[in-house]
Amino acid sequence: MTSPAKKNLAPVTVTMGCPAGIGPEIICRLFCRDSRARVSQYVVVGDGNVLRQAAERLGCSTDIVSWQPGQPIARGTLPVLQVGAPWTEPVRWGQPDMATGRAMGRYIEEAVRLIRSGYCSALTTCPISKKSLQLAGYPYPGHTEMLAALTQTARVRMMMAGPRLKVVLVTIHVAVRQVSDLLTKEEVVDCIAMTRAALQRDFAIAAPRIAVAGFNPHGGEEGLFGDEEARIIAPAIAASSGQGEISGPWPPDTIFHKAAAGQYDAVIAMYHDQGLIPFKLLHFQDGVNVTLGLPLVRTSVDHGTAYDIAGKNLADPSSLAAALSMAQTIVANRDHWSAL
Amino acid sequence: MTSPAKKNLAPVTVTMGCPAGIGPEIICRLFCRDSRARVSQYVVVGDGNVLRQAAERLGCSTDIVSWQPGQPIARGTLPVLQVGAPWTEPVRWGQPDMATGRAMGRYIEEAVRLIRSGYCSALTTCPISKKSLQLAGYPYPGHTEMLAALTQTARVRMMMAGPRLKVVLVTIHVAVRQVSDLLTKEEVVDCIAMTRAALQRDFAIAAPRIAVAGFNPHGGEEGLFGDEEARIIAPAIAASSGQGEISGPWPPDTIFHKAAAGQYDAVIAMYHDQGLIPFKLLHFQDGVNVTLGLPLVRTSVDHGTAYDIAGKNLADPSSLAAALSMAQTIVANRDHWSAL
Repeated sequence: MTSPAKKNLAPVTVTMGCPAGIGPEIICRLFCRDSRARVSQYVVVGDGNVLRQAAERLGCSTDIVSWQPGQPIARGTLPVLQVGAPWTEPVRWGQPDMATGRAMGRYIEEAVRLIRSGYCSALTTCPISKKSLQLAGYPYPGHTEMLAALTQTARVRMMMAGPRLKVVLVTIHVAVRQVSDLLTKEEVVDCIAMTRAALQRDFAIAAPRIAVAGFNPHGGEEGLFGDEEARIIAPAIAASSGQGEISGPWPPDTIFHKAAAGQYDAVIAMYHDQGLIPFKLLHFQDGVNVTLGLPLVRTSVDHGTAYDIAGKNLADPSSLAAALSMAQTIVANRDHWSAL
Repeated sequence: MTSPAKKNLAPVTVTMGCPAGIGPEIICRLFCRDSRARVSQYVVVGDGNVLRQAAERLGCSTDIVSWQPGQPIARGTLPVLQVGAPWTEPVRWGQPDMATGRAMGRYIEEAVRLIRSGYCSALTTCPISKKSLQLAGYPYPGHTEMLAALTQTARVRMMMAGPRLKVVLVTIHVAVRQVSDLLTKEEVVDCIAMTRAALQRDFAIAAPRIAVAGFNPHGGEEGLFGDEEARIIAPAIAASSGQGEISGPWPPDTIFHKAAAGQYDAVIAMYHDQGLIPFKLLHFQDGVNVTLGLPLVRTSVDHGTAYDIAGKNLADPSSLAAALSMAQTIVANRDHWSAL
């Protein structure tokens, strides 16, 4: 075992996600499809046998090899850090249970350890089922919150990033009826500041232009349909003055069009679907989820476990490819930034 | 004055909208730009002097002539039914007040009369300011509600229609925090039925495929983030069985992508921005607002008064062109349907 590699040379670690979802399939498919994926820039944290079953289903020959931290990666192999005892049963695709929930939770814990100890440079995650994560006893609504807890990070944000649009969410996995009560000026201010920092450090945009969406139809139409704009969002923008080009609150139904046309580098969205609906419309295949605020670089595919198509040879690895590539870009930008 | 024309031969009536907004400008610009617009298929209800001021600003020569119900329309002229005394002051572009509010309200009332009496076949509306409409004493949150009241229509729905996506809204101009309390199974059932009827009668789709969006992130993720899907939307879909292909509740962040890809003819959206954000992203320039449920055919531009650019020679008449064209198409489809 060698000593930890320099960050920007260390591989990215990819968690396999739910063993019964499309994670194993997109990992194998990406490996088989894309010759660039075989140049030893990432290692999978998961289960070798599950991956072998996925590769067999796909009919693609994948040289899945066991990997330990610090070992070199042989070209043309898919290196896997085995977590727990290898899976001995046939995988029941599309049928998560407590065992799959426990397994995918452990992959995440192990991946964080790899990065902490310097053996990997960044984390790219395949999808998990929030429900079976909780069934298995992990008290988190999702990946992002679990990673925040594992790294003792107080504040994280979800950015969805694609070539045409980047959105950052103020609230995420909550019922729509609760959003208004959760929106505060402090949250919006914090979201603006974290977005600005990420655009500069992770995306190498020196002077970011950030648009802040309103909350209500037409941005509340001067108070006719709701007051969150006047009460929370406008004051947050005012409090962020001096942080460069921060504008809004914009009517939600037109701001994403303007941002996608190149007028802004990112849009701050007040709730999940306000940001995700336009993002997935533009970047259904190449969208990447980037977690802001963590001490480690983390990207994720922007789709779910897709249990309805798991094991059916239908899953598209494009988002995984984009997530891996973006993790590498961010690592390089951060190295450059810290060297300035 | 001749007797009322046959519906499908009668002109469409276009209301000028707020005199201080971009309505007058897009009417003149469309007339000057598009030779098809000069073939006497529509008449403006508004103010001749305001239109002349707009045409002068644009530097386009527009032969604005006074029109009375039943008069023939001379080719190459822009016919206007003058409502009230002609505007004598210079228009203060971008500065609505009680007088502009009163005027635009009267244009709408007059246009409804023209259609009732058979002199016009359909209504296409230019944008109004909801705030100055209310300032002027009209107690309506918007155009749609005002038209419903004028025609004694109990239930209307807003459809946004474009070449790639059609969306129909269950709730419209209300604060986001109120939406959950306004959603009912009956409203969703009614919206599905009206959408289906419109797709058949107005858009000539014999067997419509309708997707119903969920309300919460990921459609509530099996109850983790909200219960409107299980409590309201799924029962509404079940109650609509027998009405052809009605499916859902779908996760809101992916269903619009699927519909735009051609899998569905329309999406039922639970609130304004859920439907309008994806719609405007795809159809920023050629989107049309169609009101379902009225006894008359009504289309509208899908943008607002745009006071910030009114009188500046910047407004794009594409949505007006699309709205006029769609009104004519719907009139033709309805004639065909009623002749079946």
